Formats: sequence, structure tokens, C-alpha cells
Amino acid sequence: MICNNLTVSPKGHLRFAGMDAAELLCRFGSPLYLMDEQRIRQNCQTYYNAMKAAFGEAALPLYASKAASFMEVYRIAESEGMGIDVVSCGEIHTAKKAGFPMENAYFHSNNKTDADIAFAMENGVGCFVADHPEEVLAIDAIAAEKGITQKILLRLTPGIDTHTYEAVNTGKVDSKFGSAIETGQAEEITKLALDCKNVRLAGFHCHVGSQVFDSDTFLRSAEIMLKFIAAIRETYGFLAEELDLGGGYGVRYLESDPEIDIAANIYEVAAFVKEQCKALNLPLPAIRMEPGRSIVADAGITLYTVGAVKTIPGYKNYVSVDGGMGDNPRYALYESPYTVVAAEKMNEPCSVLYDVVGRCCESGDVLQPAVSLPASMKRGDIIAVLTTGAYNYSMASNYNRIPRLPIVMIKDGDCRVVVRRETLDDIIGCDL
Amino acid sequence: MICNNLTVSPKGHLRFAGMDAAELLCRFGSPLYLMDEQRIRQNCQTYYNAMKAAFGEAALPLYASKAASFMEVYRIAESEGMGIDVVSCGEIHTAKKAGFPMENAYFHSNNKTDADIAFAMENGVGCFVADHPEEVLAIDAIAAEKGITQKILLRLTPGIDTHTYEAVNTGKVDSKFGSAIETGQAEEITKLALDCKNVRLAGFHCHVGSQVFDSDTFLRSAEIMLKFIAAIRETYGFLAEELDLGGGYGVRYLESDPEIDIAANIYEVAAFVKEQCKALNLPLPAIRMEPGRSIVADAGITLYTVGAVKTIPGYKNYVSVDGGMGDNPRYALYESPYTVVAAEKMNEPCSVLYDVVGRCCESGDVLQPAVSLPASMKRGDIIAVLTTGAYNYSMASNYNRIPRLPIVMIKDGDCRVVVRRETLDDIIGCDL
Repeated sequence: MICNNLTVSPKGHLRFAGMDAAELLCRFGSPLYLMDEQRIRQNCQTYYNAMKAAFGEAALPLYASKAASFMEVYRIAESEGMGIDVVSCGEIHTAKKAGFPMENAYFHSNNKTDADIAFAMENGVGCFVADHPEEVLAIDAIAAEKGITQKILLRLTPGIDTHTYEAVNTGKVDSKFGSAIETGQAEEITKLALDCKNVRLAGFHCHVGSQVFDSDTFLRSAEIMLKFIAAIRETYGFLAEELDLGGGYGVRYLESDPEIDIAANIYEVAAFVKEQCKALNLPLPAIRMEPGRSIVADAGITLYTVGAVKTIPGYKNYVSVDGGMGDNPRYALYESPYTVVAAEKMNEPCSVLYDVVGRCCESGDVLQPAVSLPASMKRGDIIAVLTTGAYNYSMASNYNRIPRLPIVMIKDGDCRVVVRRETLDDIIGCDL
Repeated sequence: MICNNLTVSPKGHLRFAGMDAAELLCRFGSPLYLMDEQRIRQNCQTYYNAMKAAFGEAALPLYASKAASFMEVYRIAESEGMGIDVVSCGEIHTAKKAGFPMENAYFHSNNKTDADIAFAMENGVGCFVADHPEEVLAIDAIAAEKGITQKILLRLTPGIDTHTYEAVNTGKVDSKFGSAIETGQAEEITKLALDCKNVRLAGFHCHVGSQVFDSDTFLRSAEIMLKFIAAIRETYGFLAEELDLGGGYGVRYLESDPEIDIAANIYEVAAFVKEQCKALNLPLPAIRMEPGRSIVADAGITLYTVGAVKTIPGYKNYVSVDGGMGDNPRYALYESPYTVVAAEKMNEPCSVLYDVVGRCCESGDVLQPAVSLPASMKRGDIIAVLTTGAYNYSMASNYNRIPRLPIVMIKDGDCRVVVRRETLDDIIGCDL
């Protein structure tokens, strides 16, 4: 199947991380997120080992924790030696409470309020990725108030269009993020940062989009960024010590998605970066990459129970499940593809097309249209949606006042709840 | 402006429900939902008075609480004599804890689990709107276990395409909701319900879509539903006592949206329904309508603080605010239009186009593209998004671990927090 943590038992049940999915649903309730700790660790190690080997000891992968932010995931990231990127006080608070060493945290976001900046400094966030000139000034002013010097990177837009989906396409000139090299604004913000007394400019950041399936995008952005670094050294005598190339490689939602050899791709990028540095007479900067999705996506699946199977003669068939856009809004938002299976009927032929829909009172609450499933589908069956470890829990809502799902982490045949299911009293917790 | 609860003060500040928006932001923090209790009550009264006058005392509007579900809104609905529709245990729990008389609650959803059904019965929900045959059987079985007879309506699809947006178009034959009249499935489920000993079939429900701006849709669905009721009486001797025509009329997001005279429309529907009943020799059923959006939408606005104003020469201008798709995912989901204003600069000419974007680390986090705002926009300015009372708070998420906003209810110059702001500790409340 999509990932080697998915197998089928002799009786035709889906096994995830070696465990029978149906048994876990019975034990932990429905619907349910499952995560595979071993797979998260393997994904971390793939980036960590390849980056250290290819770029040298100064390189570090940062787990982009917006993909899945909860205390346990930061504990795992720490034990694998990862840095993290965080985008809000909420993520900072979660990482801090989990005991993550905050000097290895990079604070992103296109819009940091003064309160956010102060909170991040009070919690010892190691590096700010400053988005725009006003933010640099705000960081400088607040650092001055606190009597510290804050390390920063500057977010630049290299002007690359990745041709991936519009909503995750963030490296082109027309972007809400960063300062464009093409317009001269990147140079201006660099000059500004170099003039600030309470920030220490360590280098530059770019991010050209998610779900990138080859290294071409990284090569093109690295080339532009390194040329910029060389030009800045030439003009201002400032040598960037860090270069952050942004997000990681794509993940497989469908069998037809390509399998990526991430390590090989990282070696390819490293060879190119070293060659460029040599040509530009630059020392190799400390490289950062920020995989989020590819650390956790294939380490997660979601299980649901079927409530209704509806056949509308001459029209369509529907399978309704007990979750939906509340726990996975990605089809509603982006028409994202997912692989959907009947977790207890893996050996039955999938001969009928169904729209797999959620329980929200909204026609747009679709998990996936036109899914091939067995003809025997009925109320009480278990549906598994695969590759849901990224941007499912983190984007979940209480739409229709439905409690958010727990996350059960599996490791070596043991299961532990790392995020508990919300209760009905949690739902009214802020109501006065 | 869009609604008469919006005015401008002499110094050019937006006033909402008579209060200076900028002062409220300063007092309650940013970002912030504001709601106007008087407007909610007026909207309730419009439906309540028109329905009672046009359809008689047995008629009742049901507030479709998925539009905005929190304890205080149920208290207001109750005091205005409204029934409610609820779609989950979470909404039932919220209404019950608010002291709402649950005999006036109608339980919707295309997918009620056995646990949901039992919970609703234990909480005295007056009427279930059963979606499909298996659900009727489940309601019957659980009612039998509890030794009660449960009143139900059956949700039917009259086969009407409203030509409104696909995601809110729910009355056509091809729908995840209900049983289609056209295919004979509506008759089958009626027969099934009539044979069940522990359910009392009270009538039928249909819902043909949201954001309906004229009565034509209601007339066409009423005609089909009444013919179905007459045919069922003919064949089975069963006379439906209730007919639920579903959701209410559209709301104005833009100045260019039509103003609807809801009362006049209800009188038009009533005249048609009475005429049809006469022609079919049917007594007038007790009519239900289920406005949700039109009860609360124009009773709410959202206030944000600007974090960055970015001009990319030759491309576009951006205004970034301290909220976004987390508190209002409707542009990201549906490209929904909204009116956006600079709340302290209402008298300045709006001469520049900006994309108003949110603070989430995602390019798709747009509140509204191409908004005309003053050229003087800068960090610290206040942005108001209008008509956000429906499907903003209820669809909100903690994406990027950003706390959800409070709701401040305004009445007669007094303000009270009815939903408090989430804290950072709330955010990690389920993390183990």
C-alpha cells in the first residue's frame, strides 16, 4: 500500500503499524486518529541523517509543527535531534510545555503581533524568521526593551512558481509572505536588519511551496538565494551564516503519487549548493530545511464508523461516516485526494463507487468522492482514510459542535492516547 | 450600510449596535467577534410574527443553531419563543445546559450514531428528523429499549436544484441527505416509519439550500411536499400534521446583495401553501421553517488588528491581520464574499486595492481579495469584516494553534462576554 506501515491481516483487516485497525477502533472509540511513532522517527531520521551527511554537521532539519502540533510530537522531534518551526504563541506554548529546547525553535508567521514577539522572547525562542520591515523594527524594539539581542533570519521570496496548488504556493513574488528579491525589497529589509542594534541577522529563509516532488524547485531557489547572499556580501560586507530552504518533499496520498527518495534528493541539492558556493566563493552556510507534512503525514490514518449507506438509483451512492470536514477539512478546502479503504473488508473486491461523506449538516462535507469500495458496505462498517497525519488534527474544528478526535500513538505494539478525545463539557468550556 | 446596526461616528469610526468598534477592540482585545442582541431578537421576531400570522398559531420557526451555537444564543432563542434545530450531541448539550426546553428541539443530521440517538432521547429532544431507513430502525429500537415513543419527521429530497452554491445545495435528488420522492424511496421510508411501533411519524421535512433570495424555491418544494402528503394519505391513510420547509432566506454579505422582505415572502409562501392544501383537500399542516444564517449573520461582525501592510510593486498589496481562516474559513472554503472596512477610517476615501489576508502560515489564508481600503493603511489599524454572525464562530478552528476568539454580546449600550477567549492552556487541554 501507500506506506509500508500498512498491511492486511489474514482475515482481511487493515493493520496499521502492526495493529488491527478494527480492534483499535473498538478499544478507543470512533472516530479516531492513529499515529505510528516509528514512522515519525524514521521520517525524522531520513532528513536528519541525509542533511548531516550531505551538508555537514551545521545543517539541521526543522519540523514544521503546524502540520501536527501537540505535546508528544515535540517530545519525539526533540529525541530525534530535530529543530522545530513554530508559527504562534500556541505552538510555542505547546513545545515549551513538552520540554522542547526552545533555542532550536524558529518562529515563523507573516504577522507577529508585539505580544507574540514578547511571548516568544520570554520563552527563549532561538530564532525569529522576520517577514517584513515593520516586524524587524518591532523585534528590534522589543529585544531592546528586554535587553537582549535576538537572532533572526529574513524571509525572502525568490520569485519561483512551483505550479503546485495555489494555496500552498508561497515562493512567488506575489505572496503574502516575505520580501521579494526581484523588487529590491529583499535588499532593503536586509539593510534595515543590519542597522538594527538588537537583532543579529544570521541569514535568510525562503519557502517555495508544499507537496514538492522533485529537487528542481530547491535547486532553483537555492541558486537565487545564494546569488543574493553573494551580492549582499559584496555590497554590505555581510556574510550570511544560515540559509533556510523551507519546506520538505511531498507525500503520497494516492498509490499513483510518486515515491520519493528523500535522501537522494537531499544529496542532489547539497551537491548543487556546494557547487554554487564554490562558484560564488562563499563558505557553505548552515542549511535548514523545514519538512512538516513529510514527517507526519504517512504516520497517520483516521478511522470512522459508517452510519448510512445510501443508494440513489440513477444517481449516486453515499457512505456516510461519523466524522468529516470537522476532523479533515482538506477535501472541502482543496479537493485534496485521499485513499479510502474498508478496514475490515480489505480482501473483498471493490466493485462499487461511493461518495464518502461526513456527518456535518452541509453538502460540502465530503471526505472523498467516487471511492471504490465493496458492494457489501453497511452501517457499522469501518472506514480508514490513509495519510492523514498532517493537517488533519491541526486543522480540526468543532463545526456542528462535534468533539475533536483523540490521537492514539502506536509504538512496538503498545498504544497510548497522546491527545484525549474532547468531551461535551470541553465543547461548552468557553460558553458563559 | 449592509445592516442598520452599522453606522459611522463623527470622527469616522465604525459603530456597531451603537458602540464604537475601536473602543470595544481596545477593551476586549484583538481579534474579536461582536454580536448585536437586539438584531438577533429582531430577526427572530420577523420569522416568529410572520409565521404565526401567516400560517396560524401551530407554525413555529426553528433556529438552525449550527449557524452559531453557544449557550447564550439558545437563551435568546428561547425568550423569543423560537424552536431550535440541533445536529449533534454537542449542540444538544449546549442547548440543554442553557436551559432550553428540549421538547422544542428538532434533531437533524444525515448520520446519527446509536449513541447520539440515545443521548438525544435522554435529554428529551422533542423531535428527530430521520434521514434514512436504517436511522428510523435505530430510533425505533432505542425508543423501545427506553420504553418511549419518539416523535419523528422524515427528511425527504423534493428534487429541486436551487442553483445556489453546490456545497449548500441540499434539496436535489442526488444528495447525502434524506430520501428522494422521485425514486420512490420517500414512500418506502414512510411505510417503514408507519410500521414502527416506537416512533410516531408527525410529518415531513425538506431543505432545499441556503442563501435563498426569493420564495420560488419554497413554493416549488412546498408544492412537491404537499402533493406527496396527499398521495401518502390516499395510499396509507396517514395524514401528516407537520411540514418543515427547511432553512430560511439569504443574508446580505455585500451592498449589492438584495434586501429581502422576509415577512412578505413568508406571507407569499403561506398563501400558496393554503391554496395548495385547499386544492388537495388537505388541512393546513403545522409549518416549520429553519432559519439559521438569517437569524445571526447580520447580528455579527469581526474586528482584527493589522500587522503588516505590504506593497509589492508591479504585483499586489496585502493587508495582514491577526486572525484569518481559523476564525472565518468561509473564503478559504467557498470563496465567500464579505464586506471589509477600516473601522477607524470610515470617512477616508478607499482608493487602494488590497488582499486582506490572515496570519496562518498558508497562502490560502485569505479573508477577502481585492478590497478597497484607504491608502493610509498601516500596522495597528483596525479592520472590520461585516456579516460574520453565522458560520464563523461555529466553523472556527485552532489551526496554527491560535486560540479561538471571544464573542462579546452588545445590548442597549452594555457589553458582556458570552463566549470567553481561549487561553494557551485551553489549547493544550487535551494534550497528554
